[in-house]
Amino acid sequence: MFSLFRPVLYLCSVLSMVISVLMAIVALFGWWRNDAEFMVFLLCAAGIFLCGLIVHFLVRSPGNQLVARQLYLMTSLGWMLMALCGALPLFFSHYELSFTDALFEAVSGITTTGSTVLSGIEQLSPSLLLWRSMLQWLGGLGVIGMAVSILPFLRIGGMRLFHTESSDWSDKSMPRLQSLARLLVLTYLGLSLACTAAYWLAGMSVFDAVNHAMTTVSTGGYATDDRSMGRFGAPILWIAIAFMLLGAMPFTLIISFLRRPRWHLLLNSQVLTLLGIVAAVSLLLSSFLILGNDQKPFHALTHATFNLVSVITTTGYASSDYTQWGNVSIALFFFVMFIGGCSGSTSGGMKIFRFELSYRFLRSQVRKLIHPNGVFTTQYNGRTVDDDIMHSAVAFSFLFFICLAVLTLFLAALGLDLVTSLSSAATALTNVGPGLGDIVGPAGNFAPLPDAAKWLLCFGMLLGRLELLTLMVLLTPVFWRG
Amino acid sequence: MFSLFRPVLYLCSVLSMVISVLMAIVALFGWWRNDAEFMVFLLCAAGIFLCGLIVHFLVRSPGNQLVARQLYLMTSLGWMLMALCGALPLFFSHYELSFTDALFEAVSGITTTGSTVLSGIEQLSPSLLLWRSMLQWLGGLGVIGMAVSILPFLRIGGMRLFHTESSDWSDKSMPRLQSLARLLVLTYLGLSLACTAAYWLAGMSVFDAVNHAMTTVSTGGYATDDRSMGRFGAPILWIAIAFMLLGAMPFTLIISFLRRPRWHLLLNSQVLTLLGIVAAVSLLLSSFLILGNDQKPFHALTHATFNLVSVITTTGYASSDYTQWGNVSIALFFFVMFIGGCSGSTSGGMKIFRFELSYRFLRSQVRKLIHPNGVFTTQYNGRTVDDDIMHSAVAFSFLFFICLAVLTLFLAALGLDLVTSLSSAATALTNVGPGLGDIVGPAGNFAPLPDAAKWLLCFGMLLGRLELLTLMVLLTPVFWRG
Repeated sequence: MFSLFRPVLYLCSVLSMVISVLMAIVALFGWWRNDAEFMVFLLCAAGIFLCGLIVHFLVRSPGNQLVARQLYLMTSLGWMLMALCGALPLFFSHYELSFTDALFEAVSGITTTGSTVLSGIEQLSPSLLLWRSMLQWLGGLGVIGMAVSILPFLRIGGMRLFHTESSDWSDKSMPRLQSLARLLVLTYLGLSLACTAAYWLAGMSVFDAVNHAMTTVSTGGYATDDRSMGRFGAPILWIAIAFMLLGAMPFTLIISFLRRPRWHLLLNSQVLTLLGIVAAVSLLLSSFLILGNDQKPFHALTHATFNLVSVITTTGYASSDYTQWGNVSIALFFFVMFIGGCSGSTSGGMKIFRFELSYRFLRSQVRKLIHPNGVFTTQYNGRTVDDDIMHSAVAFSFLFFICLAVLTLFLAALGLDLVTSLSSAATALTNVGPGLGDIVGPAGNFAPLPDAAKWLLCFGMLLGRLELLTLMVLLTPVFWRG
Repeated sequence: MFSLFRPVLYLCSVLSMVISVLMAIVALFGWWRNDAEFMVFLLCAAGIFLCGLIVHFLVRSPGNQLVARQLYLMTSLGWMLMALCGALPLFFSHYELSFTDALFEAVSGITTTGSTVLSGIEQLSPSLLLWRSMLQWLGGLGVIGMAVSILPFLRIGGMRLFHTESSDWSDKSMPRLQSLARLLVLTYLGLSLACTAAYWLAGMSVFDAVNHAMTTVSTGGYATDDRSMGRFGAPILWIAIAFMLLGAMPFTLIISFLRRPRWHLLLNSQVLTLLGIVAAVSLLLSSFLILGNDQKPFHALTHATFNLVSVITTTGYASSDYTQWGNVSIALFFFVMFIGGCSGSTSGGMKIFRFELSYRFLRSQVRKLIHPNGVFTTQYNGRTVDDDIMHSAVAFSFLFFICLAVLTLFLAALGLDLVTSLSSAATALTNVGPGLGDIVGPAGNFAPLPDAAKWLLCFGMLLGRLELLTLMVLLTPVFWRG
């Protein structure tokens, strides 16, 4: 049993030290700003670092060759540990959050969901605001790293579909993996700095720019104000649109492009489909706002695009309460929630490529129905889709809807109405952030939910972030039988 | 072009003559009961028969070997014609229905959905009541016939999964097909008579017994009273439960069993799963009603089971407004709507076997994830599921959710709220009947919906009844290109 858990403990010790370093940065910032929370962060950082160091010293090395079961344990427990550590300073802060609320906020942060139980956010101490943003930033980095390095090995998620020479991370030789990891961190950092600069130039304070940049490129969605992005003008909203879309792009593609800008790289099927859907639906929604709600054209286009991009990239900012835009807008945002961004990005959701695959598959089935003797294959990105990819997409989709139904039923059993329970289950599993209805909608707040509902949603957010199967296999007897 | 449509016209002429004979029976009944509508039915019957006869005379024979495209046209146009003919007496009756309402009622009848725009049903003339029930009865017979003879040939639906020696209808030799068709009609008739007798013995009037029997075995759900089945006591409700479940069973199985009662036939996977789900969810729901709503145990069990079976078999009767049973009941009925009965039955919905297949498939995928080098196949009913079956289940499910989303968005654009638009789209596509919310819920009525919404729902009901793909292929350019 120890040999099974050895690499898990090793990774957890490393992760906890990373987290404590980030906490120390926040403590330093708090000390500089004379923030009362500075001691909380310092003590948490020290405590977590110490625990990490002890475990690290006891375990010493990650062990030899890793097997699939260890990777599942590592990823699932790694995320849980990050959430738990992230919750500590929130719990011990002067804001007097219950442990459930602190954990919910941290899980929502680290999974880049962005649902919040806090209100009067603009009154929070700057250290806490920075910590929330940092959790999302770290979560975004973690999810890309997981998607490009661990999940393809486990045959989960869609990255196998997009293997090209330049994006092949499955070559497990250490030097190559390390250089690619460095490239990933640098690109993510570069993107965040560019976003910060853009926000600052467009008029945000440095503090707001840093925070929003961290939650934009990670498609997280935590803001520093109860009005979310509603207090900013059009230029900032359009900058956010651009960087949310960048966050929803496949990261290996961005890296390849930055290393050697060749435009044909952008002719990636997922990217074009995502941009196509965004363009089409934004125009549709804006015309609806212009004609139906008498809004000015540019205002309508800005807010329609912003909120749509925010939901489709699973960020979860809001510039206004789009559930007030009429029934068609509510239904639209409900379905858009499921789509999600590209595979290998910081976005959640069911992911664009699964819809593309299903659509192409359906098309070839229809052809087969009309010409029973014809031979039709499903092509994607210029290659024939092999059964293995198709099978895992089917398993994912079925499991997604089962989880959605079960989570909704449990939430309903706690007394939530259909719209609230269904939309909050969906928003958790897709890591979007806001749901629909008065409580969990874009103008609402998750605080009034019963504690049990918050725990269920925490589980839902982790499930969604781990592409369901990574966490789900741990719950099967066959996993533990070995 | 004529050779393409020749068999279509031939079938339509036969269908219209069948319908006019049924109408004549209603006219006869109306004349006997001194019903004012008797002339309407007589004239409609005569008119339709005449048109059918002329077309029959012009076309003469169905032509030689049929190709797939002709079968698609035949089935889709056949159902539309039946709906149109069925609407005529409703439109011309003294009840002053608009054409939209008459068509909606007829489509809902012939597709055995059971959504209604009529209120004060108990005040309707008996001829009209009988006609509504007859439409459902005919629709039920039609859908079984289609499922066992045409769809397997088109590779749509799940009947290919259940081919056994005794149920193999794909043998297209005419004498065998005719004898099986006769067997089908006789069994259906026998089941209806047994149901009528049971209802009558349990205290219904002959007229009510005949009507409800016709809408029970067809899992249609039209009642002769606004209270649906709410005015009857427990014995009648339990009889209805039994016959609704029989209606949701694979008909070929019932026939095989009646010819040679061997109990192992009942160990069919879909049958056991359906009964298992019904038993588990009824018990759960009843305990919820007993503990949460303080109902008496037997009363709770009766009403929980009745309404659950009614929705899961896509019948759509209600014994009480189950949306008043609390949020968990609403969410439960929302999800149960999608399940549906067995393949080759009169039930709609996504069908039990698709869920079973997906579940087995998911299970073998999870095993594969944990043991990447193992070989796992998906077994169903003792046989390995071949890719062809799996592919058509995937295509169906994807198309189902796309249709659900598009239909919901259109209904929302007409001003309906999310619960109403989503649940009425779902109830139409699954041919259940009632949706959720004040308007389309079990205590409501579809009449207040805008006309455009009724047309959309008519399309949705036909789509659902034709297993989506049968109708959908007609809308693709590739179908018409040949």
